[in-house]
Amino acid sequence: MQEEIRLLLKSHIDCWDKLSSGQQQTLIDSSRIVHYSSNDFIHASGSECMGILFVKSGSLRIYINSVDGREVTLYRLNKNDLCLLAATCVLQSITFDIYIDSITDSDILIIAPAAFAQVMKENIYLEAFAYKEATERFADAMWTLQQILFMSFDKRLALFLLSESKNTTSDTLHMTHEQIAKLMGSAREVVSRMLKYFSTEGLVHLSRGQIKIIDKSGLNKLI
Amino acid sequence: MQEEIRLLLKSHIDCWDKLSSGQQQTLIDSSRIVHYSSNDFIHASGSECMGILFVKSGSLRIYINSVDGREVTLYRLNKNDLCLLAATCVLQSITFDIYIDSITDSDILIIAPAAFAQVMKENIYLEAFAYKEATERFADAMWTLQQILFMSFDKRLALFLLSESKNTTSDTLHMTHEQIAKLMGSAREVVSRMLKYFSTEGLVHLSRGQIKIIDKSGLNKLI
Repeated sequence: MQEEIRLLLKSHIDCWDKLSSGQQQTLIDSSRIVHYSSNDFIHASGSECMGILFVKSGSLRIYINSVDGREVTLYRLNKNDLCLLAATCVLQSITFDIYIDSITDSDILIIAPAAFAQVMKENIYLEAFAYKEATERFADAMWTLQQILFMSFDKRLALFLLSESKNTTSDTLHMTHEQIAKLMGSAREVVSRMLKYFSTEGLVHLSRGQIKIIDKSGLNKLI
Repeated sequence: MQEEIRLLLKSHIDCWDKLSSGQQQTLIDSSRIVHYSSNDFIHASGSECMGILFVKSGSLRIYINSVDGREVTLYRLNKNDLCLLAATCVLQSITFDIYIDSITDSDILIIAPAAFAQVMKENIYLEAFAYKEATERFADAMWTLQQILFMSFDKRLALFLLSESKNTTSDTLHMTHEQIAKLMGSAREVVSRMLKYFSTEGLVHLSRGQIKIIDKSGLNKLI
């Protein structure tokens, strides 16, 4: 078990070799692997500081919740992904509320927050690693929030896909992201990222040069 | 001028002493101080990578823009504040669109992005510094976006303040943030942060135990 945890940490923390063997051992000793079943509730806003999560297998969903019960998925975490957002006591600047569910059966490696915070304080490489990861996740989350809540780009794209599907009487659209962007007056990157988001939400299936709608009523709900 | 820039950089970059003298000189040589007049447009989404900004004097506003022209202020930067969000080529994970205006006459120290990126690549302390700053700004911005766009807490608080002002026939409310939070069924921290946001937006003036409404029509526009 110790050796399995060591290998997992080594493969996830890209500055692992910059940690002293004592620091490595501290992280190993304070890590555990926890199994969650599909649809388990893993973390709720306001609950205790959970620690740093690595997805060993399975898939998690990170989302925020509104007072009226609407949920917005910020992103999904799949095998080998890392989540720092449940470690509010480690990165103290995180003051907004997130929730985490398991989507499938998942094995999650959890590093206890106090041990991670201690090594991060001692070792500048681990500090840089943690903040870089957090910056990247935040930038993704900001992008999603801006598109969904502010530009309503999810609505516009859902409407476009449903309307194209109706016009061609087919659930499979043979169009590139570039073509869709031009037709919608948007940028290719925005279309690609939102399609990827739709794909992780199980609304469409993407393959080369085509988009297959797999949950029409889900797309309709966005409009 | 060189000495002024050196002192500014030293006082803003908390790991300055961990940079080699060559790295310090690289940053000094690639920095300049630019004056902006009140209401100048400093940075637009999609425009070239601007660099790292330090506010020497004055005040800037960082905001995002919707297709229908609505603006949401993410935060303001005042004297001694640092802005990394206009350095999209340095932190490549930043893919959403921000705009920057000067609110007042401002002197801004700008470090050229290529030089900063080069030193950041060489020096782990500067890398950790940059990502930590970015994480903190993102967390603030996420909080604001979540409250404003998702929970509509800005609307609810504006409504509360206007209604209390009408009930007491006074523009000055004698209430603590704790009392308002209880009356609104919210948390004190949420009330305090939103009042601070209202204050930087020039809608209210805050002082101990009281809130003075200074822009009633501005509050009305939020509702």
